[in-house]
Amino acid sequence: MNQQDPYLLTPGPLTTSATVKQAMLHDWGSWDDDFNAMTAEVCRRLLDVAGGADSHVCVPVQGSGTFAVEATLGTLIAPQSRTLVLMNGAYGQRIGKILDTLGRAYVAIDKGDYRPPRGHEVAQALAANPDIGQVVVVHCETSSGILNPIGEIAEVCRQAGVRLIIDSMSAFGALPVNVAELPCAALVSSANKCFEGVPGFGFAIVERELLAASAGQCHSLSLDLHDQWQYMTKSGQWRYTPPTHVVAAFLQAMKEHAAEGGVDGRLARYTRNRDRLVAGLRALGFRTLLVDEWLSPIITTFLSPHSPAFDFGRFYNAIKAQGFLIYPGKLTVADSFRVGCIGQLHDEQIDAVISAVAAACQELGLSLPVAAPAETPDNLETA
Amino acid sequence: MNQQDPYLLTPGPLTTSATVKQAMLHDWGSWDDDFNAMTAEVCRRLLDVAGGADSHVCVPVQGSGTFAVEATLGTLIAPQSRTLVLMNGAYGQRIGKILDTLGRAYVAIDKGDYRPPRGHEVAQALAANPDIGQVVVVHCETSSGILNPIGEIAEVCRQAGVRLIIDSMSAFGALPVNVAELPCAALVSSANKCFEGVPGFGFAIVERELLAASAGQCHSLSLDLHDQWQYMTKSGQWRYTPPTHVVAAFLQAMKEHAAEGGVDGRLARYTRNRDRLVAGLRALGFRTLLVDEWLSPIITTFLSPHSPAFDFGRFYNAIKAQGFLIYPGKLTVADSFRVGCIGQLHDEQIDAVISAVAAACQELGLSLPVAAPAETPDNLETA
Ligand SMILES: Cc1ncc(COP(=O)(O)O)c(C=O)c1O
Ligand SMILES: Cc1ncc(COP(=O)(O)O)c(C=O)c1O
Repeated sequence: MNQQDPYLLTPGPLTTSATVKQAMLHDWGSWDDDFNAMTAEVCRRLLDVAGGADSHVCVPVQGSGTFAVEATLGTLIAPQSRTLVLMNGAYGQRIGKILDTLGRAYVAIDKGDYRPPRGHEVAQALAANPDIGQVVVVHCETSSGILNPIGEIAEVCRQAGVRLIIDSMSAFGALPVNVAELPCAALVSSANKCFEGVPGFGFAIVERELLAASAGQCHSLSLDLHDQWQYMTKSGQWRYTPPTHVVAAFLQAMKEHAAEGGVDGRLARYTRNRDRLVAGLRALGFRTLLVDEWLSPIITTFLSPHSPAFDFGRFYNAIKAQGFLIYPGKLTVADSFRVGCIGQLHDEQIDAVISAVAAACQELGLSLPVAAPAETPDNLETA
Repeated sequence: MNQQDPYLLTPGPLTTSATVKQAMLHDWGSWDDDFNAMTAEVCRRLLDVAGGADSHVCVPVQGSGTFAVEATLGTLIAPQSRTLVLMNGAYGQRIGKILDTLGRAYVAIDKGDYRPPRGHEVAQALAANPDIGQVVVVHCETSSGILNPIGEIAEVCRQAGVRLIIDSMSAFGALPVNVAELPCAALVSSANKCFEGVPGFGFAIVERELLAASAGQCHSLSLDLHDQWQYMTKSGQWRYTPPTHVVAAFLQAMKEHAAEGGVDGRLARYTRNRDRLVAGLRALGFRTLLVDEWLSPIITTFLSPHSPAFDFGRFYNAIKAQGFLIYPGKLTVADSFRVGCIGQLHDEQIDAVISAVAAACQELGLSLPVAAPAETPDNLETA
């Protein structure tokens, strides 16, 4: 059945294994010990992957990843505290929008569509704003596919004695992170990204002491991470009805993640997918937005070819007809499209999607190799 | 596979059909037209069931039912407006807690654990508080199983020119409601109750004009129903990643709901389940909390037998060993347990659960018929 479904070359929801989906063929009582044991195992495994078993706790929250980000910011950031938000794309901007909605003060470093926020810039901003309580950064900014340098940013935060909160939605599970060593006060991710589960909940890995000190701070009842944590600690249950089937699928996905070699195994496969994909599309004339140094193994942005014959909608449908869904671009500076490397994708699918792109170009009347766009964003700084 | 799973005699998550679960064996692109068509069909069908196609819109929201209630209250209630909350159990109280968190002023009529809020009481409260902008009521208060008289409450609201918001979480799909005729400004429910889908999202059926006038009012970005609606209207997509598999299961569930005869068909089966269950357990000596007039066809509260041998944990496990999960009580006034009538339950399962209860009693050393509790709450008023 699954064989006939299109492969999703998107940043999640993504193509999951048949066994992950089959884990949803059961109904679970959300109050029952059997289900509580699954929740506990999921949280324990996530803490282990994050290296936070001694210092942090894992709190799942119903909804999409944005819900988990908002829950984390709303719960952990004291109302009078100021935040530094690092932006270089749609998800960094969304963090600013959440803080606007919550009425929490922040300053932003906005690097535009595709430049990385660097450690020295963060250090400067922290020096100029000594009242900053926390820095928030996106790990892999999925809107361009850039992998932000969280190591150097964490080091600057540590030196300044400022907390770091990471939106690692599209990176956690495939990029190594150790929240205790980094250090990182909170890391947020969701079920349907690099662990290859299905969508329905997110989670935060939070410093235990910080969370314990955050009672009564949240602007929302449903999104109150402290309440969720307290209730779960006491009862073993989610505070409100959990997406039981999605949790069951996620536990199966975590087992498959471990069986593939955990973060290392997944990073190796995704990197191989990315390298194969980028080489294949470059051979067809396509150009990546980013220079190699900043390419993530999660999703890659390609600039649209310079031709009046190129139309994203037609391109998308021609590729879909061959069994693959790609993703639209999300840049303000240039026409682009994105191709994801995550999910149940292997050499065979990557090779097939390259062929599908080539065939789609021909269907649109674009001769190969396609022409690079006339005006491309200036090359990315690498310093 | 499903045959060996315990049946859930709970108010949801519940036992769903095999075909509903099998609808989750596919991965969907959340950006793709095929998925958008499913979302649109779900919303259209829900509006039809609610009788709101001409006057209302349907807005789904990720998360559990509480998220949808908070989204509805936070989006629709103007910050300076005052609300009348009708409480007779845990879910009415939760509405108060949400308004507390949001800093919205309200007055409450609290009828305790199991008495219904009546129309004349609402009329009195509205007369005494002429600045009330909306009344919020729970349709079936799942914590006792009482079916609140929303018809007479709606009529009083209509006469007073005050909006009515209904938490119909555990009733919509099985109890007839017509939002246009009632009238009702907003009705909230979720995927995993009487439509027999799996948990992962809720939805609100909202008067179009009221929602259109609610821009910028919500305390939360994730829970902003107006934003979700606007985005969905423009793009056909959910604003943030939807629980794709849960939505696919829900569409299948709605088709099966229609095939069973819609609300009428489902009400007939649930009522039959309830009558059979109540008769069977009464024959074993158990007593219902409520007199027949107020029993919902959703879930029934039974008072725990008067015996030192009765222990809910042991009782639960003995019944579970026979393949059925029942539900704990949620009363402050009396020891009790609950048994649900919703989900894929038919005569055969109801008869089997009655036998399982009888066997559990014997296992606990309770002789049959069990003794009614020595002190029971005084009989429910019926006027
Ligand atoms: C980095 C990042 N943050 C936040 C989100 C938002 O997640 P969701 O769409 O599940 O709300 C995404 C989704 O792709 C993301 O990639
Ligand atoms: C009447 C009512 N309101 C609200 C809720 C809360 O729903 P959830 O547990 O999905 O958040 C429930 C759950 O059973 C309910 O029955």
